[in-house]
Amino acid sequence: MTHHIAVLAGDYIGPEIMASALAVLQHAAAKYDFDYETTAYPFGGAAIDACGEPLPQATIDGAKAADAILLAAIGGPKWDAAPKRPEAGLLAIRQALQLYANIRPTKVSDAQIDASPIKPEIVAGTDFVIARELTSGAYFGKPRELAADHAIDTMYYSQAEVERIMNTGFQLAMQRKQHVTIVDKSNVLATSKFWRATAERIAKRFPKVSVDYRYIDATTMAIMTAPTAFDVIITANLFGDILSDEAAQITGSIGTIPSMSAGASGPNLYEPIHGSAPDIAGKGIANPIAMIKSVAMMAQYSFQANAMAQAIEAACDAVIAAGITTPDLGGSATNQDVTDAIIARI
Amino acid sequence: MTHHIAVLAGDYIGPEIMASALAVLQHAAAKYDFDYETTAYPFGGAAIDACGEPLPQATIDGAKAADAILLAAIGGPKWDAAPKRPEAGLLAIRQALQLYANIRPTKVSDAQIDASPIKPEIVAGTDFVIARELTSGAYFGKPRELAADHAIDTMYYSQAEVERIMNTGFQLAMQRKQHVTIVDKSNVLATSKFWRATAERIAKRFPKVSVDYRYIDATTMAIMTAPTAFDVIITANLFGDILSDEAAQITGSIGTIPSMSAGASGPNLYEPIHGSAPDIAGKGIANPIAMIKSVAMMAQYSFQANAMAQAIEAACDAVIAAGITTPDLGGSATNQDVTDAIIARI
Ligand SMILES: CC(C)[C@H](C(=O)O)[C@@H](O)C(=O)O
Ligand SMILES: CC(C)[C@H](C(=O)O)[C@@H](O)C(=O)O
Repeated sequence: MTHHIAVLAGDYIGPEIMASALAVLQHAAAKYDFDYETTAYPFGGAAIDACGEPLPQATIDGAKAADAILLAAIGGPKWDAAPKRPEAGLLAIRQALQLYANIRPTKVSDAQIDASPIKPEIVAGTDFVIARELTSGAYFGKPRELAADHAIDTMYYSQAEVERIMNTGFQLAMQRKQHVTIVDKSNVLATSKFWRATAERIAKRFPKVSVDYRYIDATTMAIMTAPTAFDVIITANLFGDILSDEAAQITGSIGTIPSMSAGASGPNLYEPIHGSAPDIAGKGIANPIAMIKSVAMMAQYSFQANAMAQAIEAACDAVIAAGITTPDLGGSATNQDVTDAIIARI
Repeated sequence: MTHHIAVLAGDYIGPEIMASALAVLQHAAAKYDFDYETTAYPFGGAAIDACGEPLPQATIDGAKAADAILLAAIGGPKWDAAPKRPEAGLLAIRQALQLYANIRPTKVSDAQIDASPIKPEIVAGTDFVIARELTSGAYFGKPRELAADHAIDTMYYSQAEVERIMNTGFQLAMQRKQHVTIVDKSNVLATSKFWRATAERIAKRFPKVSVDYRYIDATTMAIMTAPTAFDVIITANLFGDILSDEAAQITGSIGTIPSMSAGASGPNLYEPIHGSAPDIAGKGIANPIAMIKSVAMMAQYSFQANAMAQAIEAACDAVIAAGITTPDLGGSATNQDVTDAIIARI
């Protein structure tokens, strides 16, 4: 059976890291008998340039029809003054495919400990995931107004929206260390009180999972001082955006963190959590690892190609351990060097 | 002239650290001829117990009539099920006195470097302040709803609200290193776009100040990897809450960070940025330094008693350098030991 993969390379370093990831996939697929085909679609700034829209209808249709979607990165200064910005396409595809559960792993491998800004004795052994709600909250609530003398955003959550991400997070914890941390600001926000009350209800269905509740402000501290205490963090869209970047940084480089966005039905989307890095685009030094690990996540979660997924993951870690790293991880290798080294190890 | 200080000791460790701070003030005042009197008012959980209200009218009146307000910390599990929680009092006093500018310093003294979770070569020399908007945004916007099947919070900012905190932040930068960082989420939120446009306008009035613009998610990374790059961060209420806790943690302990909340007129309020720490209350081990440094900030900013302020600050740093620290900073001293040692050095 041929697996259909929609490819959205996007902007700036997007096409560079996507090329690396597809080269790795091609090599790994041959070795592990994985049958696939890819179709590329315009997305983000590239799509604005090509079609005047960050998310053209053909891209939505192609993405919906695919078995999985690979996305690299979008946005950048070129479209700062565009009537619709590339980021609007990212929000729109999340909505169009109802990708409500964004899973972002934070794992500190031994090879990466030295690259972390955090002291090694604190960060060693860190292994948690953030389950971020991705299709509601402050990102999408109405009314939303940008007037001359004021502006408004609305944080809105319905019961169904909170319940489904809670279920995803608790189920994930069941497959991991059976611990969930709910992160909110329930001492101030109504949506957070609602979030917490819903969590308390859902938690009853998972008696094996231990749960704790933390405020978002305090959690930014705990991620730095006790990151090994977390297993699965479940949080709202805006809080997840903030926390997952902080969490990524303790691993040493955001350039190594993949993510999966899953919906109720339809294909999952896999993407690095980093952006399009306009400052280093075209220099050949973008770290391809987050994109390559996104391919591994896809292999595992969309296609149950676990052996292939593990081989890709292990090759990435081995290459970092061998010190073949791009500048963000303190090395002097190029994107191509890293990609070749990963392929050689699969 | 007698300076009138309203004292709100609050809950759990609140009264413990307030007692330390008042002992230090008494000693320093005698030495520096500072004439003052204090009046204590019920506030937070203590006020709920005493009067059924976290912010009784007499406390508002007393605070408004004072020349400055010292607040320790409020809240805790005792009032989790109370119809009005202690935190409501904190939000209400900020509103009642229109304390729109919350200034939180992040300074890593040599003595504290080892207590930081961040590697010393990164964190050494860190010295920035966060100017957090404190009376609007997601904390106060209407509508705010907590229904059975959904919840809503509103992020609202008016032009006047954004302009006044911008002015405060830029003026602060003029007295410091002439650099401002605006932190927002303007690739997604309308309020952030508004915030950024306002900043661009205000920045023109301060041609000597260099300005950069960052997203909140990326800023959580920069605080860990390049904290010395900041001078003054200006940000919205919710983002400031999150960032200032993260920033506090890189100094080694949130137990050392004071803050000032200033309004357009009327008295400023000074308080530690940490909470009431119910888990260590009554054990005599709460770190009093954030509260004592709040007294120093008050002396400097409300009363221009600069010599006294500096003496208190210097004594705090000397005591940390001498290793006389509470457990949060890795020591085994009691609150009383630390307080006595500070008094001995003034
Ligand atoms: C680019 C931006 C709109 C996006 C977000 O805020 O969700 C990004 O930061 C992310 O985390 O995927
Ligand atoms: C206690 C809480 C309401 C408060 C806030 O969120 O403002 C606190 O975290 C702070 O930062 O002063």
